[in-house]
This record gives sequence, structure tokens and C-alpha cells, in this order.
Amino acid sequence: MKFSVTIRPWTILSSRSILDDKWLTVRADRCQTAEGLIVDPYYVIESVDWVHVVAFDEKDRVLIIRQYRHGSGTIEHEIPCGCVDRGEAPLDAMRRELLEETGCTAEAFEPLPTFCPNPPRYSNTVYPFMATGVRLVTQQKLDVTEQIEFEFVELPVLLQWIDEGKFHQPLHVSAIFIALRRRGMLRFER
Amino acid sequence: MKFSVTIRPWTILSSRSILDDKWLTVRADRCQTAEGLIVDPYYVIESVDWVHVVAFDEKDRVLIIRQYRHGSGTIEHEIPCGCVDRGEAPLDAMRRELLEETGCTAEAFEPLPTFCPNPPRYSNTVYPFMATGVRLVTQQKLDVTEQIEFEFVELPVLLQWIDEGKFHQPLHVSAIFIALRRRGMLRFER
Repeated sequence: MKFSVTIRPWTILSSRSILDDKWLTVRADRCQTAEGLIVDPYYVIESVDWVHVVAFDEKDRVLIIRQYRHGSGTIEHEIPCGCVDRGEAPLDAMRRELLEETGCTAEAFEPLPTFCPNPPRYSNTVYPFMATGVRLVTQQKLDVTEQIEFEFVELPVLLQWIDEGKFHQPLHVSAIFIALRRRGMLRFER
Repeated sequence: MKFSVTIRPWTILSSRSILDDKWLTVRADRCQTAEGLIVDPYYVIESVDWVHVVAFDEKDRVLIIRQYRHGSGTIEHEIPCGCVDRGEAPLDAMRRELLEETGCTAEAFEPLPTFCPNPPRYSNTVYPFMATGVRLVTQQKLDVTEQIEFEFVELPVLLQWIDEGKFHQPLHVSAIFIALRRRGMLRFER
């Protein structure tokens, strides 16, 4: 089989709100496929857009954070990340989150290709960035319920964590690999 | 800052159901942090576990599928993936989904480290696999509303799609990179 152009999007016939909260919005769509079949309900999670950053210090170590995540109920290693406020540019959100979560700034930010966090279910966009020349300049500024530790981790250690599943946030794993590819640090060879 | 052991999980004081459907389950927790602060509501999305597979044919090409995804409203390149049925082992789910979506079987499957799809929000686990010796043996067996195209894609092409954002499902990007690392095909070098 070869990819063709026969796959067509669905049409939304109607839509109703299941949950409309500042933290989570869920809608249920009644859809029609291009072949005329009805799919009802199809749940879509709407969310503000997200940002995250692969932040290298001058020694090419990566800034890793560690925090409790209540969805999984586990303490997770991640990269700095957060939500884009209404009307905020993704890069501004990223600078703000990096500063709030770790007290760090960067000399330069570069956007990486965007992701959809989970195309079957989520409608929002994730904006990953790569930052270089990252350094600590001030104190963290966390929400009262937030507790975030951070550390600059050597690349061979981080890659081992990923290979072994100790670092396993898939949005962040993807961004780290793409950033390393962009920096010419992950060579493909058979 | 160095990672320490000061970060502790929250306690769930009570929990109520927001949506309990076979396609999506959302609960709202009233939580207490280890410092005694109340977080209410905290929404958690519960889901059956998921599987996906980085499926190599004998020429080391990767099996890529293409389908409409209604969350993002876009036609997406992905790797074969699906849901684990109740009582089903992840590997059995993976064999079944691979056969249904593409009509392919594999000589060997190897589990890769598990992911949480999105630790702040999702409670389920994703089981990625690597498969080798993948080949077409029968017809697809799709649901009536499913339309899936598939193609074996050369690795340099797939890496270019990922680097440029044409292939951007982050769970799948992560699994592809980890599989290539495991096969010794992505070497770290400064």
C-alpha cells in the first residue's frame, strides 16, 4: 500500500459541552465521516496551548525538573514546561515558565516543530523550544501548591535515563531527541 | 540545586465522577498536598492502557500509518497503535492492533520502556513495542468508521519527517527514537 489522498476529515454536525472549567474543557461532537457514517459521541479535550523547553547550559547539560504529577500519581522527571496564557505568545510563555519554575534565563531560544499532544483526543498545540546559554539568575517563583526541584543533567546520563525509562514523559523525550538532532549530536547510522 | 527526596505525593480526600463513558472517563479529585494545602478540583482523565509499535520490515523500513484524527482535526502520520482491551495483555493487544490496522505480523516483539501519556492529567500507561521482521500477511480489518493507509518508510525519510515536524505524534516520536537507540542506530556524539 502507498499513501494516497483518499483520507478525508469528518464534519462536525453538532457539539455539546461536557465540562467547561478553567483547568479542563471537554466537548462531545456528533460527527459525520466523508462516507456519510455517523460517529456520536466523539469526545474532544480542549486546552490552552502548552510550551516546553530543552534548556542547555554552557556545558551542554540539560535542565531537568522533578515534581509530583497527580494524573499519574507519581514524581516525574521532566523539562521545564507550562501553559500559554490567553493572548500570550508561546515564546513569552516559555521565558516566563522557565523563570518561574527554575529562576533561569537563556541567551537564545529556538522554536522546534510543534506537536499535538494526542491527536485522537486533544485539539491544542504544544510549542517546544530549544534554549542555549541557560543559567540561574534568581529564585524560583512557584504557586503555593507547586514544589519543583531542578538540576542540570549531563547528556549521557539523560540519554541513559530515557533509554531505560526513568525519564519517560513522551512530549519531553521527543523534544530532547529533536533538539539533539538539530545540534548534530544524534547521528543516524546503520 | 540538586534533586533530593523532599517532594511527596498528594493525598486524595474525595473524588467525584465528571464523565464515565466507554470512550472517556474524567474524575475530579479533592486533594491535599503533603504540606496540608487543599487542591480542588484536580481533574484526572482515566483511560484504558494504550499500545504502539515501531515495526521494522526486513529492510529496516518502519511501518507508518496515516489516518484522520478528530481531536486535532487533521490527517496524521503515526505508528500502529491502539487500546488494550480489559483483561488483555499489552503484547496481545499490540499483535491484534497491528494485524487489524495493517494486516501485518512480526517475527519478534520487544517491549520498550513504558510512558505515561501526560503525567499531569492522565492516569493510564502506554506500552510501546519494537517489532522486527514485519510483513504483510492479510487484509486490514477496520471498524466501519476507520480509514487507515500504511506504508513502509525508509529510516532517513522518517527521521527527516520527524526533524521537520511532518511526523509529530510525540508518543510515537519518542518510541521511534528509543527503538533506534536500542538498535544502535542513533549514536550520541558531541
